[in-house]
Amino acid sequence: MAVVVSNIRRPEASVVEGFRKLGVATVHEAQGRRGLLAASMRPIYRPCSIAGPAVTCQVAPGDNWMIHVAVEQCQPGDVLVVVPTSPCEDGYFGDLLATSLRARGVLGLVIEAGVRDVATLTSMAFPVWSKAIFAQGTVKETLADVNMPVVCAGVLIHPGDLIVADDDGIVVVRRREAASVLAAAQAREQNEEGKRARLAAGELGLDIYQLRALLAAKGLKYVQAGDDD
Amino acid sequence: MAVVVSNIRRPEASVVEGFRKLGVATVHEAQGRRGLLAASMRPIYRPCSIAGPAVTCQVAPGDNWMIHVAVEQCQPGDVLVVVPTSPCEDGYFGDLLATSLRARGVLGLVIEAGVRDVATLTSMAFPVWSKAIFAQGTVKETLADVNMPVVCAGVLIHPGDLIVADDDGIVVVRRREAASVLAAAQAREQNEEGKRARLAAGELGLDIYQLRALLAAKGLKYVQAGDDD
Amino acid sequence: MAVVVSNIRRPEASVVEGFRKLGVATVHEAQGRRGLLAASMRPIYRPCSIAGPAVTCQVAPGDNWMIHVAVEQCQPGDVLVVVPTSPCEDGYFGDLLATSLRARGVLGLVIEAGVRDVATLTSMAFPVWSKAIFAQGTVKETLADVNMPVVCAGVLIHPGDLIVADDDGIVVVRRREAASVLAAAQAREQNEEGKRARLAAGELGLDIYQLRALLAAKGLKYVQAGDDD
Amino acid sequence: MAVVVSNIRRPEASVVEGFRKLGVATVHEAQGRRGLLAASMRPIYRPCSIAGPAVTCQVAPGDNWMIHVAVEQCQPGDVLVVVPTSPCEDGYFGDLLATSLRARGVLGLVIEAGVRDVATLTSMAFPVWSKAIFAQGTVKETLADVNMPVVCAGVLIHPGDLIVADDDGIVVVRRREAASVLAAAQAREQNEEGKRARLAAGELGLDIYQLRALLAAKGLKYVQAGDDD
Amino acid sequence: MAVVVSNIRRPEASVVEGFRKLGVATVHEAQGRRGLLAASMRPIYRPCSIAGPAVTCQVAPGDNWMIHVAVEQCQPGDVLVVVPTSPCEDGYFGDLLATSLRARGVLGLVIEAGVRDVATLTSMAFPVWSKAIFAQGTVKETLADVNMPVVCAGVLIHPGDLIVADDDGIVVVRRREAASVLAAAQAREQNEEGKRARLAAGELGLDIYQLRALLAAKGLKYVQAGDDD
Amino acid sequence: MAVVVSNIRRPEASVVEGFRKLGVATVHEAQGRRGLLAASMRPIYRPCSIAGPAVTCQVAPGDNWMIHVAVEQCQPGDVLVVVPTSPCEDGYFGDLLATSLRARGVLGLVIEAGVRDVATLTSMAFPVWSKAIFAQGTVKETLADVNMPVVCAGVLIHPGDLIVADDDGIVVVRRREAASVLAAAQAREQNEEGKRARLAAGELGLDIYQLRALLAAKGLKYVQAGDDD
Repeated sequence: MAVVVSNIRRPEASVVEGFRKLGVATVHEAQGRRGLLAASMRPIYRPCSIAGPAVTCQVAPGDNWMIHVAVEQCQPGDVLVVVPTSPCEDGYFGDLLATSLRARGVLGLVIEAGVRDVATLTSMAFPVWSKAIFAQGTVKETLADVNMPVVCAGVLIHPGDLIVADDDGIVVVRRREAASVLAAAQAREQNEEGKRARLAAGELGLDIYQLRALLAAKGLKYVQAGDDD
Repeated sequence: MAVVVSNIRRPEASVVEGFRKLGVATVHEAQGRRGLLAASMRPIYRPCSIAGPAVTCQVAPGDNWMIHVAVEQCQPGDVLVVVPTSPCEDGYFGDLLATSLRARGVLGLVIEAGVRDVATLTSMAFPVWSKAIFAQGTVKETLADVNMPVVCAGVLIHPGDLIVADDDGIVVVRRREAASVLAAAQAREQNEEGKRARLAAGELGLDIYQLRALLAAKGLKYVQAGDDD
Repeated sequence: MAVVVSNIRRPEASVVEGFRKLGVATVHEAQGRRGLLAASMRPIYRPCSIAGPAVTCQVAPGDNWMIHVAVEQCQPGDVLVVVPTSPCEDGYFGDLLATSLRARGVLGLVIEAGVRDVATLTSMAFPVWSKAIFAQGTVKETLADVNMPVVCAGVLIHPGDLIVADDDGIVVVRRREAASVLAAAQAREQNEEGKRARLAAGELGLDIYQLRALLAAKGLKYVQAGDDD
Repeated sequence: MAVVVSNIRRPEASVVEGFRKLGVATVHEAQGRRGLLAASMRPIYRPCSIAGPAVTCQVAPGDNWMIHVAVEQCQPGDVLVVVPTSPCEDGYFGDLLATSLRARGVLGLVIEAGVRDVATLTSMAFPVWSKAIFAQGTVKETLADVNMPVVCAGVLIHPGDLIVADDDGIVVVRRREAASVLAAAQAREQNEEGKRARLAAGELGLDIYQLRALLAAKGLKYVQAGDDD
Repeated sequence: MAVVVSNIRRPEASVVEGFRKLGVATVHEAQGRRGLLAASMRPIYRPCSIAGPAVTCQVAPGDNWMIHVAVEQCQPGDVLVVVPTSPCEDGYFGDLLATSLRARGVLGLVIEAGVRDVATLTSMAFPVWSKAIFAQGTVKETLADVNMPVVCAGVLIHPGDLIVADDDGIVVVRRREAASVLAAAQAREQNEEGKRARLAAGELGLDIYQLRALLAAKGLKYVQAGDDD
Repeated sequence: MAVVVSNIRRPEASVVEGFRKLGVATVHEAQGRRGLLAASMRPIYRPCSIAGPAVTCQVAPGDNWMIHVAVEQCQPGDVLVVVPTSPCEDGYFGDLLATSLRARGVLGLVIEAGVRDVATLTSMAFPVWSKAIFAQGTVKETLADVNMPVVCAGVLIHPGDLIVADDDGIVVVRRREAASVLAAAQAREQNEEGKRARLAAGELGLDIYQLRALLAAKGLKYVQAGDDD
């Protein structure tokens, strides 16, 4: 029995807005190194950067029917997340669907499968993170769920969870944790700014982070190179 | 016994020309979703787009001797297709061979192996679709066939078949089917133009393709999100 | 017992300088087709090109502690080489460490693991060759060696060996062989220049390299295409 | 903050017992083709077959400390599920840990990483499903959670969910759905028995499943082979 | 337009019988090192060995409908070859289909996708060569061709071509070449028998194949090991 | 210039003998978790276990000429190690070469490439660890080195180093360190024996290794499961 869930909850607009200034690595660290999708998910062009609530969409292998259903569930600022029910790299998505999503204000696509028309998507500046670039066409035969929880590239995503994606990849923030993770990420960002200035001035991480004593305590030895190789 | 076949047949020049305005995804769909090389074949730079008849070349693993033989069989507008007789990612091809192919008017290379000198190839604007970028050098010891049918990245290619390649990958069109596939692809292109305009205006694919009744007939249900996650 | 070796030997500055004008493919050929790292090692942006002595650094899986130790061992012009003690694609390295390396004059990073903050690294023009782009954070718990020999992407690297890296990948030149390899590579470069001109003028490799007699001796046959496919 | 959750709920013993007579494919179909771990998870020996509640354990890459913690949380009939916080194929588990688990009555291990001592594990008849066989040793430095939900090989697993594993792989059944899935799987099993007998007697699936009219309606054509290839 | 071709031609029964005594490596060598499927195709159990004419079957990704159609086209002694129209590792085939094929006298299955119920298939001694073992279920929605040429794991297979498969993998022999390849393979087998005896007696390949002069002519040097590493 | 080094040094026979009673995991741990070949190297049958000095052999891709040269350099008790000069999975080695090696008393083969005739090798009980099983034939055209250092599956191996291989994989012990590593491994083995008995009796690793205080110090918390999922 396939189901489409409407009127999902999304994070506060101001919280989403706050994440648009932050990078994936920072958000990932700020929430305790959780929520990162697998490294096999790559953007089709760089640089790229978005943040928005997830509309989730399952699809059968080689069948993009449900993406058409999912489009209608999207609101401005959303990110569409598409996951096949078994591993597939077919080209489920191209410039027509991107045109439709853009008309609805959707910011980008995360798809654990293939995508096509990447030259057009790039010139449209419609960002996509995918497992493959592959022109293989799909059919429209089999139902699947829209806006139900999915596991995408190793991470559980609920509809309405916050997707933050950039050149490094994609991180997911739980909707209810979004505000607190934002605060932690902003604090981390500020803290890094100070360290960056000290490192640029030539100070060593060994000193800034006070690592020398810890290294010695664990037994690290320094020796001089010998005369030969 | 290794063989070089000369004077292969090629599609009509006007047909080849027609394909140069079309994308890989469109051509693939227009011929019934056949002929697409595996997603592991990637262009060394983007954007890129070519169409031309295939000159096919087999090579022994780690041995690029026959590419030198194949160069002589190429005519202006051709695409060279190189396939090792067993899986190999060595750098069979670099800027010297590209210079030689360009001098003969060849448009680009499709190779199910590695390629090197990619910075120079990129600045020459000589497009290559390959399985790997790898500088590993090759020897010149073992014969293989030129202009015999090959299977490249999962697809059968006869010499003289039409190769269409762009950022999405590579599709092969049988020589004898080239004219009819061109007509079908051009029709598809026009049809998509109209749909693109409607989608850009905010109309939904659900309505344009009249999918709602079909989805309901298969049993798709719409529900409202509950109060919690 | 983990060890940091200080004051490693490096090749002559003039020799290192000479390699900065040469490509990876040329150097690889000039030293007898040895020393090439696996094709899985890719630059995070292109074009890119560096040459410099290796400072080598082992790291535990998911633990970047020793990179902080290695930074202190780097001198201007060096290339940092990082290898995990078991396969790992975590993001050991980001813009803060790059800032620190740049402050010390380090030219770039070769890491058989993941890297993050690639948008910032690209805008800093700090080149990195890595196995993955992945934001996954690391801990600081486990010691490993700095400036001991390592195997990186299939190649043995001693500290002080010369790293040459560009869009094609990475090649390693033994410190003691650097001067002779440089001479051989420069000779090869000059030799190729002449061939490039002849090939650009339309001469065939078959004739330039005098391959026709060899091919015939091995039994290569030329035939005309038949009337059908 | 790492947490160990004690006293997790498990499915009814009689329900668990019922699953021990069923195969993974049957259970997967019976719950609507959900819950199957990725095909990269393979048993270290065959045949093998277990069913039991999951005790879940996260581990840092290259660090098996938390497995020792998880052992204490196991009860007779349980299945231990181990997931690294980033991809890792190190050998987290060997015959000593298997001896300890067996002493507690644990039925087997599912680990999205590597395992070692497989000859001993095989002669002990202690079944393991893993991503790799690899002897690489691990450290004991970093905390992680025990009995919190994990995503293992693409599937969400809560502690106490039912793990069914055999030569085909692993399927997860939600604890609360276990009784109803068991009933559906048993029904399916009986239904298949009848079909097996008819197929063995030479009846065709085309007739048993009444597929001929459907195929014709979709347009399938039957033709005779021509005179040549 | 999907098509089923009936009454395909098969090689002579006596020729097929002859191949049943030969190994894949021998046949592959005897026909000039052609026709070998990719190494990713593995038998589900070992030892195993079959030879028979191919019935070819395309399937949509995640859709096993056409296998039911193909079963009817099989005769005693055939080998069923199944290829998805885009890459897929779903479990298209299990013990019910194997029961049906066995009832028709089919010898085994070659499938460039996944298979399930492998414990039962093994106890039935029904051999399968596949890309994966995966229980993932499939639907019955989309047509595809039966007994049309396919590319399977990199090799073109026409219906009626001879499939020879054993622990080493799978090789395809063109129907029209089957008799001549059989003769060549039998000759090779006899020749190897003599060599095996000489090698077992301690004679060296260097002498049997008279390689010493050739090696010296190419410049091979023998030196004594030095005093240290 | 290709070179064959004769009369390499080997470890003491008694030391080699000692390793034949030890497993790969034990030896790997005993020498500080170094020397383990990549997990992609798998035995063609199990169980299997050997230990002996390495005779090293490089081969060109798709060319097994030098294996014939290497056979002559082997002595009773040796292990042949074969590494291609660029990645290759061709079937370099089959039952004829195994017959020849066995006639010389060689214990087994480690090859970072493919192997064939595995059914015969298995029935001969000649163990092989390889990257692939693949029947693809090779040529005899290109020279390479015998008994020079090689990097095999990520590990540097000198001729005469000790190879220990079993179901878990392969570990390399430096010739000069062999005696001391043997002693350490035997000590470790004995120590494990005691632990195994305590674990089998139900004692927990948490107590045997005194981990509870360390875990608490790092902040591990124990909580009770709540009432719902």
